[in-house]
Amino acid sequence: MVKLAKQGHLVVRLKGGDSFVFGRGGEEIEACIEAGIPFEVVPGVSSSLSVPAWRGIPVTHRGISRSFAVISAFHADLTPAKIPDVETVVVMMPLHSLGSVRSRFLEAGWDPSTPCAAIQSGTLEGEREVLSTLERIDDDLAQAKLASPILVVVGQVVGWAKEHRELLQRVVTSKAGRHQA
Amino acid sequence: MVKLAKQGHLVVRLKGGDSFVFGRGGEEIEACIEAGIPFEVVPGVSSSLSVPAWRGIPVTHRGISRSFAVISAFHADLTPAKIPDVETVVVMMPLHSLGSVRSRFLEAGWDPSTPCAAIQSGTLEGEREVLSTLERIDDDLAQAKLASPILVVVGQVVGWAKEHRELLQRVVTSKAGRHQA
Repeated sequence: MVKLAKQGHLVVRLKGGDSFVFGRGGEEIEACIEAGIPFEVVPGVSSSLSVPAWRGIPVTHRGISRSFAVISAFHADLTPAKIPDVETVVVMMPLHSLGSVRSRFLEAGWDPSTPCAAIQSGTLEGEREVLSTLERIDDDLAQAKLASPILVVVGQVVGWAKEHRELLQRVVTSKAGRHQA
Repeated sequence: MVKLAKQGHLVVRLKGGDSFVFGRGGEEIEACIEAGIPFEVVPGVSSSLSVPAWRGIPVTHRGISRSFAVISAFHADLTPAKIPDVETVVVMMPLHSLGSVRSRFLEAGWDPSTPCAAIQSGTLEGEREVLSTLERIDDDLAQAKLASPILVVVGQVVGWAKEHRELLQRVVTSKAGRHQA
């Protein structure tokens, strides 16, 4: 990116994933700064919010959740992050970290019966969702054999969303030919 | 929406703002459930993440922030939410709530020197940004006369982003004719 920009090109780096949510967008900006290259950031749709939304799970909902946080277990040391004191937590993670993250929730005083949804390949063809609770999620995921990475939504908004699972369908996007589900 | 759907139409409700981040998306789904209408949610770009990104502020950045939360002061009782224990907090709020939210940060033990950025009309023509700190933000915003609503990013990632302000430009989108800034 730096090399091409220095040659006078206008360089667009189009990335999958949200570069600013556990991506390396900041590091790429640092490279631009170091080289004195002007840049801008054109935001896209972030899976951290869009995958829950696509599954009909609002990260905030009146009377149920007035704040949400996004954490990850993708760190150099793979230590799960501390669990923030909010109503809805979105965890972006490799599957093998799940057990330890679940322990953190329980240690942080979350009710073991808190609903959670684990989503693999959200919005894509291989999309799968497992609805569970904090206490049962390890067993449920082992049984369902989801593939890494997954996104897990933890909070009462998932319980709320369970109520409408029969009506959640691909209505518009399938007519638009994007999905044949 | 319910009325048209019951007439057999395929109804698309196109909304500005993220319906699931302090919007009423959940309530609209409840109306569909009550009427037995199948629905889907097509996610878009959420200002809660895209406005910080557009301003070159990564909500997570290696070594600085490994979690973020989004809170609001837009509640029926206008009581500011509690401040979550994360590295970066995005506050979506009417301007007049700022003083009380700021107090909550300080009461929650945040360092008064923590950098913050207040952004009005992010990505739009009337976009304005005020870079400040928790202790000075009330005065700085009073002086800058921003208009409500604003989005405030609080955390060391803002201090990091201050370093590149000279290089943050409208490079691509201005060439695409979208902005003439």
